[in-house]
Amino acid sequence: MIKFTIITLFREAIEPYLKTSMMWKAVDKGLAEFDFVNLRDFGLGPHKSVDDTPYGGGDGMLLRCEPVFTAIESVKAKDPEAKVILPTPVGEIWNQKLAKELPIDAHYIILCPHYEGYDERILSIVDYKISLGKYVLTGGELPALIIIDSVVRLIPGVLGGETSAEIESFSDGDNLEYPQYTKPAEFRGMEVPEILLSGNHGEIDRWRKEHSGKL
Amino acid sequence: MIKFTIITLFREAIEPYLKTSMMWKAVDKGLAEFDFVNLRDFGLGPHKSVDDTPYGGGDGMLLRCEPVFTAIESVKAKDPEAKVILPTPVGEIWNQKLAKELPIDAHYIILCPHYEGYDERILSIVDYKISLGKYVLTGGELPALIIIDSVVRLIPGVLGGETSAEIESFSDGDNLEYPQYTKPAEFRGMEVPEILLSGNHGEIDRWRKEHSGKL
Repeated sequence: MIKFTIITLFREAIEPYLKTSMMWKAVDKGLAEFDFVNLRDFGLGPHKSVDDTPYGGGDGMLLRCEPVFTAIESVKAKDPEAKVILPTPVGEIWNQKLAKELPIDAHYIILCPHYEGYDERILSIVDYKISLGKYVLTGGELPALIIIDSVVRLIPGVLGGETSAEIESFSDGDNLEYPQYTKPAEFRGMEVPEILLSGNHGEIDRWRKEHSGKL
Repeated sequence: MIKFTIITLFREAIEPYLKTSMMWKAVDKGLAEFDFVNLRDFGLGPHKSVDDTPYGGGDGMLLRCEPVFTAIESVKAKDPEAKVILPTPVGEIWNQKLAKELPIDAHYIILCPHYEGYDERILSIVDYKISLGKYVLTGGELPALIIIDSVVRLIPGVLGGETSAEIESFSDGDNLEYPQYTKPAEFRGMEVPEILLSGNHGEIDRWRKEHSGKL
């Protein structure tokens, strides 16, 4: 079973995604488990502060070391083998190959950083630095969901059709899916390519290969 | 003002993200508006079906044309200028430049496709095909949130510090942020680089430039 413990200030923003959609089925089947740690519980001082201004000047507030280290250690105290994932623009770019290679019999702690940044020393307790792409987000919560979704859907038994995950885009390397069509055969003057209605599976396979995109 | 109308079967999975986090502030300030259309309302037959099997054989169910076209047209009937965004692996790879260039005084309809695919003819009513990266997800809901988050946070007035969005990673092209540190100056034997405590802003700027990552 795969387990994800998400350290965040915004549990209410992302938990519903994990309770609906396909992710819920994975939990229901005992194939995945999701847990949350509220970073605020590890905040400092009367205001439970988790961030502060940058040394050397500059805009914005950075996540401090202490709350992050103690939050992570609270999880590792119960499971020393848990690995820490940090979504960050300086990480390895996430792709389908990484999603397939991530061991699924493991426990991952995903730290959702503040949008303005984090103290660099936090990297010392991180096992996987992952970038979702070359764009900036308000926090690490959506990257956390993307990582979880793309990994959990590949676990055998999560998707309805067992083989669906395998034939989709990217699954066998750089092949993109071929164009697909469903009923009706004609819609507002747009017709399904005749070959797909032919029943000739050799021809259909050839057509699909010819029309598969490459990245 | 920017408006996003999201066509989805999983409103409950993603609406909470837009009601919390930074996105809520944008709505509160009148800078952004979010709306939902339930694709199921446009489904066919007694079961309000929105998908069917692929012509030519194969696994999985594909989104059908009719429900998608009529759902989009129901939005366009009220706002003919609305543009349609489809998250799809065959789209242009989303990045910070695209996020900055997307006009913010506009209405976007984001169609969240089914994880197994869509009828190719749906592309004929799409204005923007966008890929979030080279990985497969269970649906278009998370890509929709990523697009919204990365665009809305750039709208002047949404972030607390007006200039924060500008100095962050990727904002001026390919520059990654420099390492940042906040209190305490020493944490478990790890020290903040002395230069950042010096108060010499010329030296600090030089250090930061030297330590900025490139993509």
